[in-house]
Amino acid sequence: MMTMMKRCAVFGASGGIGAALTALLAAREDVQAVHALSRSGGAGHGKVVAHRFDLLEESSISAACEAIGTPLDLVIVATGRLVRENGEGPEKSWRALDAGAMAELYAINTIGPALIARHTLPLLPKDRPAVFAAISARVGSISDNRLGGWHSYRSSKAALNMLVRNLAVELARTHPQAVAVTLHPGTVDTPLSRPFQRGVPAEKLFTTERSARHLLDVIDGLTTAQSGRLIAWDGAEIPF
Amino acid sequence: MMTMMKRCAVFGASGGIGAALTALLAAREDVQAVHALSRSGGAGHGKVVAHRFDLLEESSISAACEAIGTPLDLVIVATGRLVRENGEGPEKSWRALDAGAMAELYAINTIGPALIARHTLPLLPKDRPAVFAAISARVGSISDNRLGGWHSYRSSKAALNMLVRNLAVELARTHPQAVAVTLHPGTVDTPLSRPFQRGVPAEKLFTTERSARHLLDVIDGLTTAQSGRLIAWDGAEIPF
Repeated sequence: MMTMMKRCAVFGASGGIGAALTALLAAREDVQAVHALSRSGGAGHGKVVAHRFDLLEESSISAACEAIGTPLDLVIVATGRLVRENGEGPEKSWRALDAGAMAELYAINTIGPALIARHTLPLLPKDRPAVFAAISARVGSISDNRLGGWHSYRSSKAALNMLVRNLAVELARTHPQAVAVTLHPGTVDTPLSRPFQRGVPAEKLFTTERSARHLLDVIDGLTTAQSGRLIAWDGAEIPF
Repeated sequence: MMTMMKRCAVFGASGGIGAALTALLAAREDVQAVHALSRSGGAGHGKVVAHRFDLLEESSISAACEAIGTPLDLVIVATGRLVRENGEGPEKSWRALDAGAMAELYAINTIGPALIARHTLPLLPKDRPAVFAAISARVGSISDNRLGGWHSYRSSKAALNMLVRNLAVELARTHPQAVAVTLHPGTVDTPLSRPFQRGVPAEKLFTTERSARHLLDVIDGLTTAQSGRLIAWDGAEIPF
């Protein structure tokens, strides 16, 4: 049987994990095209097709999705913000709770991915496997939370986990082979995590390339029974 | 031993559940004062002290908390929005996802309660039991979500559950007898739920008074081991 050539999209393709995912996908023989979406846009090369988009500007998402077209076999949302655009945060205590900080992180970490779903789900094929995967985080697990802090980030990721769960429930009705999941990439050496790596053992601090490789392994092995779950880089399910 | 006379605050005291909670608390012998906070303010009577506040206006929350003063033994956040102020929602499908709708529900259901926590937690006593309880909902449980829909509401409540979990973790360090929980009030006959009551068996549709009575029973029985959990009207813990 001929392997289906996949068309993929990576939102946040200029970020650490997003760039590594884009490169690994483009190197695969079963991938026909990787649509790489970022705020700067950038240049395409080989199978990589670059698009500009801004999470805060829905029309840019819809325009990029129109350019990508159907079918889209794999959507990865690799966007995310831990520290505010002005450099503040994450919160260490409830004393630092701030309406503007919360709204900013919800806009980027929750509402943005929802808008991406709104415009990419119509591109998923109904007659073969498809995956919508959003990078979330273990610290977005409520039951796993024993340290506190990072209020805006944690709660934005819990909300994202719920949204993707909703997508999974709804996709199951129309796209029997589709899977929607949130993924925990491990602690990855990126600008997002750099100020917070103290105490992370070296063998648990992944390069972006290693994290991306793990995440693609997880995505390759996904079953529809896992749709709606939060899954770590090693394939283990994380309770909400 | 003399029973400690409690000082309580109900945010959202003009809502269905909030008004019932306020009345029941004011009727108790172990309650000295009930601070009833609502958008309209309203008039106090007996033990009930009325305050005006607006969830979207942090200065109104801090001013009300300054007027309430310390110690505050019980804080109940009974605010919440399912339908947009303009009458739209809740979403039936991802096709209805809308950035403005999400931001509006997060502002009311998540950021507002966070601001209330920010200004009430400093009033909690450190040397005796105290409770911070926010009304959440079973539909805010990610693992319990099998129907989908109500994206903004569900995700705003999942985020609220995370925030209160964070409060519980942090309070345990400074207030050894304090408990922070989210509560599921059951399906209650209020304007919020009225358009969605079809299919709810009559014996499972609570009056506001019955729901409030159940919630106060749960609050009375809380232990510090339950801090950070989502607890239903019947005392059962709901997994996140």
